[in-house]
Amino acid sequence: MNEFELIRRLTQSLPTNESVVTGAGDDCAVLEIGAADRQLLFKTDAVVEGIHFTPDTPPEKIGRKALARCLSDIAAMAGTPTAALVTLGLPKQFEVDRIEKIYKGLNELARQHAVAVVGGETTSSPERMWISIALIGSVTRGKALLRSGAQAGDAIFVTGELGGSLGGRHLDFEPRLAEARWLAEQFPVHAMMDLSDGLAGDLRHILKASGVGAELLKRAVPVSREAKLKAKTGDAAKPAFVAALTDGEDFELLFTLAAKQAVPLADAWRQKFPELKLSCIGKIIAGEGIKLRDETGVRQLTAHGYVHFS
Amino acid sequence: MNEFELIRRLTQSLPTNESVVTGAGDDCAVLEIGAADRQLLFKTDAVVEGIHFTPDTPPEKIGRKALARCLSDIAAMAGTPTAALVTLGLPKQFEVDRIEKIYKGLNELARQHAVAVVGGETTSSPERMWISIALIGSVTRGKALLRSGAQAGDAIFVTGELGGSLGGRHLDFEPRLAEARWLAEQFPVHAMMDLSDGLAGDLRHILKASGVGAELLKRAVPVSREAKLKAKTGDAAKPAFVAALTDGEDFELLFTLAAKQAVPLADAWRQKFPELKLSCIGKIIAGEGIKLRDETGVRQLTAHGYVHFS
Repeated sequence: MNEFELIRRLTQSLPTNESVVTGAGDDCAVLEIGAADRQLLFKTDAVVEGIHFTPDTPPEKIGRKALARCLSDIAAMAGTPTAALVTLGLPKQFEVDRIEKIYKGLNELARQHAVAVVGGETTSSPERMWISIALIGSVTRGKALLRSGAQAGDAIFVTGELGGSLGGRHLDFEPRLAEARWLAEQFPVHAMMDLSDGLAGDLRHILKASGVGAELLKRAVPVSREAKLKAKTGDAAKPAFVAALTDGEDFELLFTLAAKQAVPLADAWRQKFPELKLSCIGKIIAGEGIKLRDETGVRQLTAHGYVHFS
Repeated sequence: MNEFELIRRLTQSLPTNESVVTGAGDDCAVLEIGAADRQLLFKTDAVVEGIHFTPDTPPEKIGRKALARCLSDIAAMAGTPTAALVTLGLPKQFEVDRIEKIYKGLNELARQHAVAVVGGETTSSPERMWISIALIGSVTRGKALLRSGAQAGDAIFVTGELGGSLGGRHLDFEPRLAEARWLAEQFPVHAMMDLSDGLAGDLRHILKASGVGAELLKRAVPVSREAKLKAKTGDAAKPAFVAALTDGEDFELLFTLAAKQAVPLADAWRQKFPELKLSCIGKIIAGEGIKLRDETGVRQLTAHGYVHFS
């Protein structure tokens, strides 16, 4: 049983109450907390030594990454982050200097986004360090962008370039908070999420939640320089395009909106965010699953994570 | 450097913003989130295999304990819990049945207190399982009970009985949510917290935050049956009274209010909560540190955790 199957099983019948607007299954939970025009966003995310960072990772970047992952989830709802709690699992022999630097990196990113760090705790983790972040934020009432709103005929967009993040970008990516809020204010976005497990896997979350399928245009998927370089020089037998679909940790925005909005959006984006690439990578279609169109025709992308052509 | 010194160092200059009413250092953070008459409470807490539970602990009780610890912190502020997120660190070879039972215990307690479970995530933890809970709740504006309000002359109260919790009570203690809310509504409580590290250590948090000292009356401290039994039959050389001061994981309420309220409170409590013991264990005094009064006189309690007489 993999992570997704386990989560599906565990989230079948969770306790709920009248505060819940959107529970498990989206980038953040959305909660009604009695504010006039805002709803609360609520998210946790953890990074583990040896998995999400190594003993050699500069400690400032560990702290930065731990918070940035959560900020990216707030961005994915078009929200604004408010306050974070930090839980540290620490081996008995920890270096105070390293922990302080982890906090330094985390605090710097928090200050950039006006996020308060309001506490947390330390606990014992004998074999390896981990950091779990809990983050709250807010969003204009009814304006949280969910995974479930995609409609057949929508254009599919992605920010930035994909693949090869583990070459370094995973440690200093920029959570797309300003971009996501601008999008939600300026355009009728139907569905949005952030890319953490790779486009091929993550897009399926939007498709399942929305009950639709997608057709991707191979040449339109923005493949990062790192992914191209690695495919050329590395010993990994992974083509750059497959890396862009499956590497994960991109933390870019993936969203859909009506096709007629695609050109106005592309124009407005270039004015507003000239430094950040925005790509229309395909369209939402009736049905299910992901089809891939290239110069030879249309094929099905079958697996989650790894990509097989049928 | 111990946990408390590390936390003190890390929390010296945390990022803040205008939403923060009470940041790091109390049982929960208190945040202003634009609701007319409520403030938000925010807390995380983690349990780690081999530390807070063992591979043999019934899984339902692991899940229950993970959530109950956080609920106890909401109680300590006189708040009402709203929604929880669950982060699971899992070894590769996990038993689905065990995880489902952990969730079952957690969900049952959540339903008892009308808490929604709104998601979370699983992450890899190769050597041992851990569960981190993030919890939000709310409290009437300005009515959160902090650690910093104790005044010289206050009576000090504690609910329940202390010590020996690891004999079993740590797995099925009742978070004192209803009791705390009733207290805050009915009496002008000055300071409150929940007991997690043992009375001798935890009371010092109230004293430091409030800039006062305390005198405890030895025979008034409620020592649990388990602590007495263990002192008699076990091989541990820890007297039952020392266990009551230092064992930890009691999750009872510790609070102070003006001495003139002590008798009215004791009377009203007996009516309202006849099943739960309430003990007046001493008084807040000017100065600092904890003095202990017994039949032979007054002595200083010096160490944190362990108790030395000087």
